[in-house]
Amino acid sequence: MSEDAAVEFEARSHPAFLFDLDGTLIDSVYQHVIAWREALQEVGINLSVWKIHRRIGMSGGLFVSALARELETPLDRDTLAALPALHGDAFLRHYDGVRPLPGARELLTTLTELGVPWAIATSGAERYARRGVELLGLPPDTPLITRDQVRYAKPDPDLFLAAAELIGVDIRDSMVVGDSVWDLLAARRARALGIGLLSGGYGREELIYSGAYRVYEDPRDLLAHIDEVGVRRPL
Amino acid sequence: MSEDAAVEFEARSHPAFLFDLDGTLIDSVYQHVIAWREALQEVGINLSVWKIHRRIGMSGGLFVSALARELETPLDRDTLAALPALHGDAFLRHYDGVRPLPGARELLTTLTELGVPWAIATSGAERYARRGVELLGLPPDTPLITRDQVRYAKPDPDLFLAAAELIGVDIRDSMVVGDSVWDLLAARRARALGIGLLSGGYGREELIYSGAYRVYEDPRDLLAHIDEVGVRRPL
Repeated sequence: MSEDAAVEFEARSHPAFLFDLDGTLIDSVYQHVIAWREALQEVGINLSVWKIHRRIGMSGGLFVSALARELETPLDRDTLAALPALHGDAFLRHYDGVRPLPGARELLTTLTELGVPWAIATSGAERYARRGVELLGLPPDTPLITRDQVRYAKPDPDLFLAAAELIGVDIRDSMVVGDSVWDLLAARRARALGIGLLSGGYGREELIYSGAYRVYEDPRDLLAHIDEVGVRRPL
Repeated sequence: MSEDAAVEFEARSHPAFLFDLDGTLIDSVYQHVIAWREALQEVGINLSVWKIHRRIGMSGGLFVSALARELETPLDRDTLAALPALHGDAFLRHYDGVRPLPGARELLTTLTELGVPWAIATSGAERYARRGVELLGLPPDTPLITRDQVRYAKPDPDLFLAAAELIGVDIRDSMVVGDSVWDLLAARRARALGIGLLSGGYGREELIYSGAYRVYEDPRDLLAHIDEVGVRRPL
């Protein structure tokens, strides 16, 4: 094996991990869903809650496009402009119920101890993401890419590409861990491997059909099977 | 064809419909999920929200058994006894957001106009079910079987068997329409055909793997394809 090939082989056998936040590390998807339902209702829009659920985690712009398509009516500019703040207020009303997902802290700590690089990349705004990082008991210098830092959010690959760059790893040596179809589609666009978690409330097959390389229940379940996705733990 | 065979053929080609309520006719699943999350939190139990979601619609007794299994710790009798009332209070706090699902009223009205027998069968208590019936604009004499009227709720078949008996149809000539795995498992136990709706937030494949004969988005989508499940509309 040439030296270059050996270096590449070494990297591919020690992947980095790029984590989504909501539904992947913290248990906040259902609060986001209910908050969107309330925000939409405040502007007189009645959209079925399951359809909101299936759009959580995608970019706000695409969310609004999808919404307009579902409603089959154009939405006026003022209504659209008011929605993010209404959702934000409603989400904060429900934030008391948000908790870290089982095993999230242990998974991140274990990766750090093993010297495996990792970062968080979220379609959420920085002000919510910072709260999530605190909830997980992570230090303020945790590698974090938020919606504000890229042009396009998921299912575009930008968030994960920026996260890989931030921690100095090749996206092609990275595993993207997420709970939604949008994470997994973004992973494929980025040429990373996607790992699906059921903890955001999607069905297992929805994640597999979106290209998940592997699906686990939640961070605890992923940690218990971490050797399946290329991380060797000392015996 | 003998007369008996002809009568049986006639019945099988004009099925009756037995509907679940929450997530099938009214958009209340996510409010139930958040209400259970709040009730559990009030007694100090921290269970991931997606796991609550996947248990909605099953019998309360089985819900509690599943909960105890997830927590891997026994729950004391007082805690268990307090939970239903805490959930009920929390659900009423969130009830303002509950709406009929798209097409629910139109579907039931159309079946009535076509002379197709139908009934509602829910794992919920009568006091909540009555509110749902009102929300749908249905008369008080709407055929309705609730948790209080049977020994075992879903995924046992009792609710659907009782509903078929109430409207005088053979369960084997009936289609059970539900949003959850528990509806579809109960349908198979009862030897009815199950029709899955995505409007409760399960994935399509979860419903197919539980034995759905057909899966639609919501009541409106079922109504648009009603000829696929044995109902002929006059041209």
